[in-house]
Amino acid sequence: MKHYLSVQDIDSLDHWVEEARDLKEDPKKHKNLGSDKTIGLLFFNNSLRTRLSTQKAAMNLGMEVIVMNFGSEGWALEYADGTVMDQGTSEHIKEAAQVVSQYCDIIAIRAFAGLKDKEEDEAEKVLNGFKKYASVPIVNMESSVGHPLQALADAITLAEQNTKARPKVVLSWAPHPKALPHAVANSFVEMMHLQDADFVITHPEGYELNPEITKGATIEYDQKKACENADFIYVKNWSSYSDYGKVLNQDKNWTMTPEKVGKAKFMHCLPVRRNVVVADAVLDGDRSLVIEQANNRTYAAQIVLKKILEQ
Amino acid sequence: MKHYLSVQDIDSLDHWVEEARDLKEDPKKHKNLGSDKTIGLLFFNNSLRTRLSTQKAAMNLGMEVIVMNFGSEGWALEYADGTVMDQGTSEHIKEAAQVVSQYCDIIAIRAFAGLKDKEEDEAEKVLNGFKKYASVPIVNMESSVGHPLQALADAITLAEQNTKARPKVVLSWAPHPKALPHAVANSFVEMMHLQDADFVITHPEGYELNPEITKGATIEYDQKKACENADFIYVKNWSSYSDYGKVLNQDKNWTMTPEKVGKAKFMHCLPVRRNVVVADAVLDGDRSLVIEQANNRTYAAQIVLKKILEQ
Amino acid sequence: MKHYLSVQDIDSLDHWVEEARDLKEDPKKHKNLGSDKTIGLLFFNNSLRTRLSTQKAAMNLGMEVIVMNFGSEGWALEYADGTVMDQGTSEHIKEAAQVVSQYCDIIAIRAFAGLKDKEEDEAEKVLNGFKKYASVPIVNMESSVGHPLQALADAITLAEQNTKARPKVVLSWAPHPKALPHAVANSFVEMMHLQDADFVITHPEGYELNPEITKGATIEYDQKKACENADFIYVKNWSSYSDYGKVLNQDKNWTMTPEKVGKAKFMHCLPVRRNVVVADAVLDGDRSLVIEQANNRTYAAQIVLKKILEQ
Repeated sequence: MKHYLSVQDIDSLDHWVEEARDLKEDPKKHKNLGSDKTIGLLFFNNSLRTRLSTQKAAMNLGMEVIVMNFGSEGWALEYADGTVMDQGTSEHIKEAAQVVSQYCDIIAIRAFAGLKDKEEDEAEKVLNGFKKYASVPIVNMESSVGHPLQALADAITLAEQNTKARPKVVLSWAPHPKALPHAVANSFVEMMHLQDADFVITHPEGYELNPEITKGATIEYDQKKACENADFIYVKNWSSYSDYGKVLNQDKNWTMTPEKVGKAKFMHCLPVRRNVVVADAVLDGDRSLVIEQANNRTYAAQIVLKKILEQ
Repeated sequence: MKHYLSVQDIDSLDHWVEEARDLKEDPKKHKNLGSDKTIGLLFFNNSLRTRLSTQKAAMNLGMEVIVMNFGSEGWALEYADGTVMDQGTSEHIKEAAQVVSQYCDIIAIRAFAGLKDKEEDEAEKVLNGFKKYASVPIVNMESSVGHPLQALADAITLAEQNTKARPKVVLSWAPHPKALPHAVANSFVEMMHLQDADFVITHPEGYELNPEITKGATIEYDQKKACENADFIYVKNWSSYSDYGKVLNQDKNWTMTPEKVGKAKFMHCLPVRRNVVVADAVLDGDRSLVIEQANNRTYAAQIVLKKILEQ
Repeated sequence: MKHYLSVQDIDSLDHWVEEARDLKEDPKKHKNLGSDKTIGLLFFNNSLRTRLSTQKAAMNLGMEVIVMNFGSEGWALEYADGTVMDQGTSEHIKEAAQVVSQYCDIIAIRAFAGLKDKEEDEAEKVLNGFKKYASVPIVNMESSVGHPLQALADAITLAEQNTKARPKVVLSWAPHPKALPHAVANSFVEMMHLQDADFVITHPEGYELNPEITKGATIEYDQKKACENADFIYVKNWSSYSDYGKVLNQDKNWTMTPEKVGKAKFMHCLPVRRNVVVADAVLDGDRSLVIEQANNRTYAAQIVLKKILEQ
């Protein structure tokens, strides 16, 4: 059974991107592919783009959509095996996943990292719990460690905008007042591993991402140097991975500015804090791709759902 | 691009009302008009009638509907330009509006007045923010200063019930324990400006509505005198406009009673507090039009969406 | 007008079960029966299975579905007649029910027992309020005293699994840390009254269900003895009925174990607390029917909606 849990589930990035761009030309082309099929979108965390674009993608394929805010509308789930459930949790993931599988042909799940306990976050208990016990394909709408729908949308955007055989793509950390997960950055790095590009990651010391994910990537601690002659600069905040979930600094020198962007195209997954992560002049300038990245979320989700429906 | 932000966006009230009444006869007549189109209903506040009737109207036109409680399900929005977003807001209206425009062909928004700051409420930052940055038509599902879907439903109800060339229509303030916005009253007054009627507004001193909106309307501080020989009495509480957002009194003498209603028809937008705003005997009597007003909300929304889809 | 408020609204359990099993074979067989019809699912409490399976059932019949979390998205309802509504409630059930009836062809409602006041719970103010004032059929998605969609799903499951002319069916209380309503147990008992079975209820003293409901049923206080030679054991916690809403004990000796289950099939409505209500070994064993019970919720809801649509 084909899931979409991480970027690794893309068998050919080039083909998927190409097919997604075709869908973008004619989103309703396969409007009967999903008829009589139901997708359940289960949100354990807030969402704007993912919520709307995944619904839109499913509707473009003719699917029925059930949206559920699992946290506030359902029951608190237990993930551990063998627990005596006499405390706060009311239902075990074993039952929940099996049950939802009977009502939905595809289950999509958003469950963020808690950023308190690295081991727990990396266990991906929600996503992996559903994967383990569900009898239908699972789609990751951002889990503790990955956001592969975003990364696929980013790949589509890069393909649309890139004019070079081997563009220089920079992933830059930026400051943020709150501790944020590593999911978007992780999946972007994983996706870049599938691209032919001069890929550079830049961040202050202490903000190194999981070394297993960044293995082989160039890391440059001098942001300005990293951005020199870049074709694309993807900006994103994340909290420390080594000092897990901590905000080590909020150094405004790392805010992305027009000077650093230069002639590069600017990318960000949104939502973005203006004048903290990036200066207004960048976001409002014609080098910003953020709105088109969000637009491509629909076609990223649509190609994923199409691949699953066709299997 | 045609929005529906206020009663002023109705180019011909008579024609819209007539067409809405035709839709009421055969709600599914244009069931393919909206096919392959998506409406996003974004709620920043609670809703019963608006939530259900706008969905129903969109479905009657064959549209796909995405409903989102923006406050609890999405991100806290920033509306000010140039802000350094290092506080409570996570996403700027500039991005949010542009992004949602890519998933939805029409965006409908409910965002009530805060009643703390007149200037801020009158700036209509949510509605106007979406209008400014969205690339699709915007529908007002009750904003700080107007509720034009309600006013249009009221116009339909008046047209159905009126038997006179020039009926007497009274808008009466009524007591309420909480501070309520002026939106419903404002839009009703604006809609009455488009009607041929003897229109009288009555309220205690200190409860004058925005004089720019009521300009030209008759104001009578004696409620009983105002109601004499009325054909329609529309009752609604609102908080003070001059002493902005304050509850100046809860005078039970202003509660609407069968004696004051006389032979008039009784109207209210609902929800209504029984025996505070209006006596049971009025609501439960055969002069009450409140249920039909709520019914007409569907056809008001439907004619608005139809006009937008046809442009 | 045909409602589905309790098991009593089933005119022939055998026929309904048979027809539901036919629907299960071909869920989309009547996919046009509900076209141009809308169902409103109003949740006053949390829900997983009911939320998803009732939506699924309605969509299988081609209905439009509107889901609303009434508590958090709508207005606080008043149920008492003649109240001066100057306190916490904003809208009377009289208006709410009439209004929703205009947007929905069927209204389904979930409103749990509060377990504070027996008389108030038994008055079923939400369900009965909607029944009294709505002008469309009402479906009970679990009320204070009954959960007839669950009982119907249980009847389908029994029919699928039973091989005897007169099976022995046991309803056993089990411990639970929180006070739970009697609704599931009540409806299961009512449904068993319509079955040809050797039906035994077992629970500690003090946990007797409403005697009007259990009238005629065998009650056995020795759980092991009750379970002997059972074909089906339905386990469920409920709080005390006589000492209303109280948790009298959490005696772990009542937890269902493989030894007590023996060769019986195990049933539970879910969500279930593992190793409190029932041991892992039972739930994970091949005698457990809980996942299939949940699956049958779709067809229970679908046969109910079909009967209502066909009237």
